[in-house]
Amino acid sequence: MALRFALMIDPVASDDRRESFDDAFTVVDPLGPALPLGELSAQRGDGVFESLGVVDGHAQEVGPHLDRLAHSAHLLDLPAPNAAQWRAAIARVAAEAGPGESVIKLILSRGIEEGSSPTAWVTLATAPENTRARTEGVRVVTLDRGYQLDVPGRAPWLLLGAKTLSYAVNMAAIREAKRRGADDAVFVTTDGYVLEAPTASVILRLGDRFVTPEPAAGILHGTTQRSLFAHLAQRGFSTVYEPVLLSDLRTADAAWLLSSVRLAAPISAVDGVEKTVDRDLTDELNAYLLSPRD
Amino acid sequence: MALRFALMIDPVASDDRRESFDDAFTVVDPLGPALPLGELSAQRGDGVFESLGVVDGHAQEVGPHLDRLAHSAHLLDLPAPNAAQWRAAIARVAAEAGPGESVIKLILSRGIEEGSSPTAWVTLATAPENTRARTEGVRVVTLDRGYQLDVPGRAPWLLLGAKTLSYAVNMAAIREAKRRGADDAVFVTTDGYVLEAPTASVILRLGDRFVTPEPAAGILHGTTQRSLFAHLAQRGFSTVYEPVLLSDLRTADAAWLLSSVRLAAPISAVDGVEKTVDRDLTDELNAYLLSPRD
Repeated sequence: MALRFALMIDPVASDDRRESFDDAFTVVDPLGPALPLGELSAQRGDGVFESLGVVDGHAQEVGPHLDRLAHSAHLLDLPAPNAAQWRAAIARVAAEAGPGESVIKLILSRGIEEGSSPTAWVTLATAPENTRARTEGVRVVTLDRGYQLDVPGRAPWLLLGAKTLSYAVNMAAIREAKRRGADDAVFVTTDGYVLEAPTASVILRLGDRFVTPEPAAGILHGTTQRSLFAHLAQRGFSTVYEPVLLSDLRTADAAWLLSSVRLAAPISAVDGVEKTVDRDLTDELNAYLLSPRD
Repeated sequence: MALRFALMIDPVASDDRRESFDDAFTVVDPLGPALPLGELSAQRGDGVFESLGVVDGHAQEVGPHLDRLAHSAHLLDLPAPNAAQWRAAIARVAAEAGPGESVIKLILSRGIEEGSSPTAWVTLATAPENTRARTEGVRVVTLDRGYQLDVPGRAPWLLLGAKTLSYAVNMAAIREAKRRGADDAVFVTTDGYVLEAPTASVILRLGDRFVTPEPAAGILHGTTQRSLFAHLAQRGFSTVYEPVLLSDLRTADAAWLLSSVRLAAPISAVDGVEKTVDRDLTDELNAYLLSPRD
């Protein structure tokens, strides 16, 4: 995902109601030097981010992504983002996207070491080719996330519900999955509950019920999962948040990984055991997810 | 720790035996733009690092730090660092340090997204003032690290023994400690074993025995702890790696946090309960740690 366009943001206070944020944006060379070495994003992964899908120039689910950015910032004691400013930045960047699928990434870092304000930027890249994942599906392996289901609630300093820049473990899990001949991983707790994939939510179909793990389990509340659940509910399905056992994933009628850019990727195998892919339903879900959504 | 000097490194293969690495180093403005926005250190905390103490221009424990950098790189599937090249870079940067205490930081990142080689750099900063921590000590609170003692051995994708750039949790733990009126945190497992501090090792004195938790518990093997254990062994003390219970920390005759820059900081309170600080022994330990060490 080579970057095609980038905007540095000078973050203003969350209650700043100025009419234009243009003078707080700086277009920068997306491939040239931009961040100083003292940047705490680079030194310590100390910040939060969001990735938004963009379809034919329309940034998807801007509101839910900004809500989650604010939630992550709160968990990390970062200054609350000014939603209007970020909205304006997203609009400025989305205007450069053109036809097809792109990715907008929002980054809010703690800033420079010993500095007094956060650093923020927004980038645009062409989305990777996801057709195969959306049709044939992804083979997953389950990997222990190392904690029990009750830990996130009592240890907020573990930041388990925040989308932080500290993603080394997420990347290591995907490498481990590939080493095992799979495409992606699904994290489970040490006591056997399904959590999420390193960069996606997990949903299961059990008859006419669609189920996903509760966000209180220290996972991200997926914007794509929420949007899809609203759509499924409108179509008359039951949509449920509840603890999901690894055995539920294995026996579910169908399962998907959901994320903002790859969208709905059916799970075609769990730990080497094949799983049926519902092509027609998956196509419908992705048609919905590719329609303009706010 | 404002940066005073910085060198970008073009990492060469680990078996490259060229005589000079000068043409693989670029001096850059330590405060100016240097990293592109696609840098995976900044986007995902995807890389490894080391912090070395520098005393009057002498970089301390270069060999052990480079060994650990290589170990961390291996755990993250990064190309093995060329030790001679990093040694040369450290020498180049240490030459700028001048008198007093400084910090050299080594960073090895996965590189630019879709790029083919890692990014690497070395920075120099003046060390923060640590006299108070070294004499009066630090008050710590214990915080649950969320996993049981047996997890790191069976889930290497959690990278628990690697010094990664994904340090958001470490920083959040220090903020939580400060919120509770303490100076620093000590991580413990959910089953009650002492691990490490967010940026330091823990050692206890139990009579004539000095004890530290086993590195197999998913903690960093501290370079300062290793150096100090060698020194203590030479002085006739027994030095031991073994599982350390939280109750051991509470009842130990004395305890210290050890790190490359702050050096030996005696623990003066655990979860609000005062602990005796052995000023004379601590002064001796820090005198040793401030002497030139390789």
